[in-house]
Amino acid sequence: MSETGDLMQKMVSLCKRRGFVFQSSEIYGGLKSAYDYGPLGAELKRNLMNEWWRDMVQGRENVVGLDASIIMHPRVWEASGHLSGFSDPLVDCKVCKERFRADKAPLAESGSALVLAFADKGQAKVAEELIEKQFGQKLTRDGKELRGALAGDRGYVCPVCASPFLSEERQFNLMFRSSIGPVDPLGAVAAALEEGRLAGLSGRELRAAIEDLTKPSAVYLRPETAQAMFVQFANVQQSMAMKVPFGIAQMGKSFRNEITVEHFIFRSCEFEQMEMEFFCEPGTDDEWMEYWRHERMGFWKRYANNPDKFRFRAHEKSELAHYAKGCYDIEYLYPWGWGELEGIANRTDYDLGKHAKHSGQKLEYFDPFTQKKFVPYVIEPAAGATRGLLVYLLDAYHEEVVDGETRVCLRLHPRLAPIKAAVLPLVKKDGMTDVARKIVDDLLRRGIAAKYDEQQTIGKRYRRHDEIGTPFCITVDGETSATSTVTIRDRDTMAQRRVSVDGAVDEIEALLRK
Amino acid sequence: MSETGDLMQKMVSLCKRRGFVFQSSEIYGGLKSAYDYGPLGAELKRNLMNEWWRDMVQGRENVVGLDASIIMHPRVWEASGHLSGFSDPLVDCKVCKERFRADKAPLAESGSALVLAFADKGQAKVAEELIEKQFGQKLTRDGKELRGALAGDRGYVCPVCASPFLSEERQFNLMFRSSIGPVDPLGAVAAALEEGRLAGLSGRELRAAIEDLTKPSAVYLRPETAQAMFVQFANVQQSMAMKVPFGIAQMGKSFRNEITVEHFIFRSCEFEQMEMEFFCEPGTDDEWMEYWRHERMGFWKRYANNPDKFRFRAHEKSELAHYAKGCYDIEYLYPWGWGELEGIANRTDYDLGKHAKHSGQKLEYFDPFTQKKFVPYVIEPAAGATRGLLVYLLDAYHEEVVDGETRVCLRLHPRLAPIKAAVLPLVKKDGMTDVARKIVDDLLRRGIAAKYDEQQTIGKRYRRHDEIGTPFCITVDGETSATSTVTIRDRDTMAQRRVSVDGAVDEIEALLRK
Repeated sequence: MSETGDLMQKMVSLCKRRGFVFQSSEIYGGLKSAYDYGPLGAELKRNLMNEWWRDMVQGRENVVGLDASIIMHPRVWEASGHLSGFSDPLVDCKVCKERFRADKAPLAESGSALVLAFADKGQAKVAEELIEKQFGQKLTRDGKELRGALAGDRGYVCPVCASPFLSEERQFNLMFRSSIGPVDPLGAVAAALEEGRLAGLSGRELRAAIEDLTKPSAVYLRPETAQAMFVQFANVQQSMAMKVPFGIAQMGKSFRNEITVEHFIFRSCEFEQMEMEFFCEPGTDDEWMEYWRHERMGFWKRYANNPDKFRFRAHEKSELAHYAKGCYDIEYLYPWGWGELEGIANRTDYDLGKHAKHSGQKLEYFDPFTQKKFVPYVIEPAAGATRGLLVYLLDAYHEEVVDGETRVCLRLHPRLAPIKAAVLPLVKKDGMTDVARKIVDDLLRRGIAAKYDEQQTIGKRYRRHDEIGTPFCITVDGETSATSTVTIRDRDTMAQRRVSVDGAVDEIEALLRK
Repeated sequence: MSETGDLMQKMVSLCKRRGFVFQSSEIYGGLKSAYDYGPLGAELKRNLMNEWWRDMVQGRENVVGLDASIIMHPRVWEASGHLSGFSDPLVDCKVCKERFRADKAPLAESGSALVLAFADKGQAKVAEELIEKQFGQKLTRDGKELRGALAGDRGYVCPVCASPFLSEERQFNLMFRSSIGPVDPLGAVAAALEEGRLAGLSGRELRAAIEDLTKPSAVYLRPETAQAMFVQFANVQQSMAMKVPFGIAQMGKSFRNEITVEHFIFRSCEFEQMEMEFFCEPGTDDEWMEYWRHERMGFWKRYANNPDKFRFRAHEKSELAHYAKGCYDIEYLYPWGWGELEGIANRTDYDLGKHAKHSGQKLEYFDPFTQKKFVPYVIEPAAGATRGLLVYLLDAYHEEVVDGETRVCLRLHPRLAPIKAAVLPLVKKDGMTDVARKIVDDLLRRGIAAKYDEQQTIGKRYRRHDEIGTPFCITVDGETSATSTVTIRDRDTMAQRRVSVDGAVDEIEALLRK
């Protein structure tokens, strides 16, 4: 087991065991890369997203929030280019039938020798005969392997069996599609068939005719939260009397029918975003780009144990979206290597321009001071909330040997930790439970997430709270009744010190403010 | 204009003008009853949902949270009965082509005389000819009206033109359907057609065959958040070592392809729920039902100006879902009459039993104290968050005449108000702006949503903040520099009193705690 797989496997296991992340619909065998956030995961995610909202919206005079619908008017996606362009190239392996993304497939130079490896001998035999029949090519079979195939001009091969015998690439749109209104799109196809309206059609024509029949009611789940901020630009600017430069921020679910899902919650079909569109005067955009990328990097490092695992990566000219003037990724060093966590892009006036054109509405700004009218440029810091959660879980995971046993400690930042303080009576007698319960009540009344815990030995309880990232444990013990004191234990150092019962809650509040 | 329409119209207008609620995709003409929450609406909704979470989850030892995916395994909806039963009866008017819900249509006794009223004379003429041709019935036409039609056995007529000439009722499933994975369901239909696999089929057989072709990849947007709590019952119970009785709570979006959308955000296709499933031992369920319905009523009244506008309504035996032992609605007196805000149902062991059967997994609880094993009963308080927001907006709306002008005051509970305190320099000079900005910074640092506001006259600023529900205004005026005092103005009474500059933030904090 590699180091990488090891950490991820431990994380997935801890997440399930401790109620952070479950597979969606697990009792039914799960749904492709969909995840549910359990009691602790839900709190962790809430805490992270609340921090972002506090930092980006509530703490700034020039940024306001938005919470738009997931299903928007289909013309939004026409204007944004998602309907025509938000797609991945999809290919089928003619041998093992795997369907995969061409741009993610293993590379193989034209003419290079290949070894095709199948799941079992039977499959290899079938493939051998198929290849001979279809391609007139005779390969040598050795059990589950076939030798003698040469890579074609495609430049890549099947990621499962390494076969170069592939279908044409076709574009697969990643938006989830549905239908709205009291209509039956499949019934419309059936009706057209019965009325002979599809007679004589075949191939692309037939497919297009079926598309036309179902299109009038088609809607899409948003693949990003960003577009709502452009579409509602004028409503927000006017209702809040905002002056450029200003930003509109939104958090929430987005959906992409990903062909390749990977690395636990890193890439999944349903995920949560935290995006902000900052509207500024053309000419000031480079400055704001600098401002926002440093603000955002500061945010991520603020809660991290290992700030050196975050870095900027400037996009090459070749990888920039055609409308973007520049883009920086904030990357994290995941167990499998550097990968994206947030993108900060200069989208220019592309989006407002497109929506103005498609809607026929003016999406401009009139500056009351300079008397100038212009279409603002946009700097967009677009972060993955689901990815952020994974990043902080990985960043926090820590193992050490204590008294000959492995102690797992989730060193989550106190502001992110699902439970801030556990209150533990050493034993269930001598009035210890009453004192502990009163402290919990006091903590909850101050809005501090606290948990009363009396199950198992005190050592096991400490380990349990280490593992779920509870930064502080308050223990009511044998000395409490005599001295009116309790201990506060620090998760990371395991150091304990005594404080007065009456002062314990103030103490926790002060520690959390640090 | 009726009183009812008047209040709703004023509310819709205020919501748009002040950035609470916009129509979704408005620049594209809007999408059927979909709404976006603007800067103030987003904060108000967050505040309401945070209050619910604090009350139901964070403040209770025996309730934990969950945040599940919106797209779940399709077998969840098979087991829950939503795939076969979550539908409304749909009917088409053969005359005016309106498609409507049979169970919401205007009633008309069989044989009673009808007056059909059309949008214009032309439409009436077409209908007259159609009726005569299709039904052999001769009606008298008077401009836009047709007389002489008699109601049929259906018991209802078209809600638009009153016609009794209706199609058969058919069941329309309210779940939004999509497709997951790298597949093309419509392409599969096209391929089957080309290969002649649908040849010779017609009517229901053809429709069913098309259904079968698209079904393998079909997924549904959840029509309620509740099912995830049943499906993840065992994972949550075990990972958190919960002891029955305990609850699992979830907030989030649900989707219903409603045929009839109505009353602004009251009934829309995309809405937000706050649901909790409380698992208890059979035999204790009636007691818990009593407990939760009073807890929930207490919650709603806590933030209301008019607590007498909330009431319980026990469901009649005839309207109970077949699995429910009992159900109480918490109703609110909307401008159009009493209507549902929350339902509290005794769902017995129906859901856990269904999912256990369909998944083959045991969904039982073993009580370590009594050594009994049982399937828990469930009490479910299921509230509409979107409706809650509408209720509190309506509850808060208040108009009065002050100095000969109408003052609109949104008397939102301070915990719900989007902005808690506005800080206003009387004029933009004499250092007033600096003092005001410092107070805003102090408020924000304490986590109190504050806004600096220097635009327009002080009177207009007060009115603006009255209208968006800001409970307190702090004004920095001419006396401030001499006496180191500012005024605090109360939104509801408009009373002002002076407090010291240094104590203003403490004062606001104390007022908010009340």
